[in-house]
Amino acid sequence: MSSPPPHHEPARLDVLGIVGVGLIGGSIAAAARQRGLTQRIIGVGRTLSRLETARSQGLIDHATNSIRDLADATCVIVCTPVDRLADDIREVACIVGADTLITDVGSVKSSIVRTVMADTEAASRSEKSGFEHASPTLFDGRVCVVTPAETTPPELVERAEALWSGIGMTTRRMSPDRHDRVLAVTSHLPHLAAAAVASLPTDEELEFAASGFRDTTRIAAGDARLWQAIFSSNREHMLAATDELIDLLQRFSAAIRNDNADALIDLLDRARQHRELFSRLRQAGRENDGE
Amino acid sequence: MSSPPPHHEPARLDVLGIVGVGLIGGSIAAAARQRGLTQRIIGVGRTLSRLETARSQGLIDHATNSIRDLADATCVIVCTPVDRLADDIREVACIVGADTLITDVGSVKSSIVRTVMADTEAASRSEKSGFEHASPTLFDGRVCVVTPAETTPPELVERAEALWSGIGMTTRRMSPDRHDRVLAVTSHLPHLAAAAVASLPTDEELEFAASGFRDTTRIAAGDARLWQAIFSSNREHMLAATDELIDLLQRFSAAIRNDNADALIDLLDRARQHRELFSRLRQAGRENDGE
Repeated sequence: MSSPPPHHEPARLDVLGIVGVGLIGGSIAAAARQRGLTQRIIGVGRTLSRLETARSQGLIDHATNSIRDLADATCVIVCTPVDRLADDIREVACIVGADTLITDVGSVKSSIVRTVMADTEAASRSEKSGFEHASPTLFDGRVCVVTPAETTPPELVERAEALWSGIGMTTRRMSPDRHDRVLAVTSHLPHLAAAAVASLPTDEELEFAASGFRDTTRIAAGDARLWQAIFSSNREHMLAATDELIDLLQRFSAAIRNDNADALIDLLDRARQHRELFSRLRQAGRENDGE
Repeated sequence: MSSPPPHHEPARLDVLGIVGVGLIGGSIAAAARQRGLTQRIIGVGRTLSRLETARSQGLIDHATNSIRDLADATCVIVCTPVDRLADDIREVACIVGADTLITDVGSVKSSIVRTVMADTEAASRSEKSGFEHASPTLFDGRVCVVTPAETTPPELVERAEALWSGIGMTTRRMSPDRHDRVLAVTSHLPHLAAAAVASLPTDEELEFAASGFRDTTRIAAGDARLWQAIFSSNREHMLAATDELIDLLQRFSAAIRNDNADALIDLLDRARQHRELFSRLRQAGRENDGE
């Protein structure tokens, strides 16, 4: 599934364009600047007053509404919501030079790759929003999945990997389809399940919910429009993963109905073991990163 | 569903017996002592060496293996796992005087009430274990549901309420059946869903799981035997709640399959609103408690 990343040449980011200067885009800007990867950062967004604030805080050097201002960019990172990504990437591609690297931080890949085809993609995730939360260390030690299409030139893939490792991430290569399956079961389906669990209690019953409910449903507080777009973009994998979840719930239910304590313990123990493996993997990731 | 609690006479806990001195039992002991509710605490457990440690730390005054040592207790709180509660409560009832209050901290009520019938029950929850984590403030501002059977003498119900409000909790009365439904949708089903979500990714896919997965599945790390007992004790409500969760997941799935963005946003928005109401209720609870 993954292999050790090759040694990357330092990223060439003389002029870095960031489309969508929120938490992710702002953190990329902060990390690139702190690590001395870039001479100049151009921030593109819809609300110029907010972009000007980001500029006055030193996060970006130039604030603009217009993607045309990216004509001289060495690299453009598109950080807009997943349902706008493909259009924004195409628009950028019409403006920049042929050797400009265009990449993005969407968490659904296949549908975007099918649309823009020649571009290189990369993934990152978080739930807070706004450049006010931006941090140059947001990506430290996190895994970035680079998902080249079959037609993506190898040189562009390597430049994308150099970019993400340049801001502190560990990179992995994966096909767009495999990436979307992985994101479905590790991120998108947990969100859907959290939303369903949060919806079940009545208002009166919610008074009695405690810390287990709090944690299991935390991500259900996320923006509905954003997650609708993610689910819809990752349609086939979400349908398959939801079916798998329902099958598993039915196995739990059958074990309870049949008073089959052994089967129920087996199901719960398998969950516990997976959860503990996840904790160990995260711990190992942090240690490798020197945290 | 709930009404303002009546003014309670101070709890009479001259000799307080605690069966099962773990996180919950130990915290009750610590809270009762700190608030000066009791003269003497008798701790009953299976592992005498651990009880002696609790005694040497001042958490209890007397450590014993034998429920018979509770003969003079004014009040006995049974804090053993849910599948042992009914037996332990019956054993205590054979030993103590007729005016001794027997209560427990199990989180499934109906099956216990059906078994012991004349006893008063109360609920509390947490996921850490062992008296080493015990804290006199564990219950501050938390809701304790008192679940009298129809045959429970009102005086015993009031003494139970005085006990729990005496250690800092807010009390609510509820029928055992209603209590079990509430716990199914706010606690037990979230646990089952977290376990199912934690089980879905393969070991390789787990490497790519992030903070959303971490929170949604946190409680799936809990003890399998303990949760099997809780699910089995709350069988009917768990089966109903699991069916409701599956129905809801199928509605999400249909909205994704049919590319029905509006339906998907409605489902996600309803979840978000519930989650926000939960946060507001918790915030209000903490503020009422002076936190």
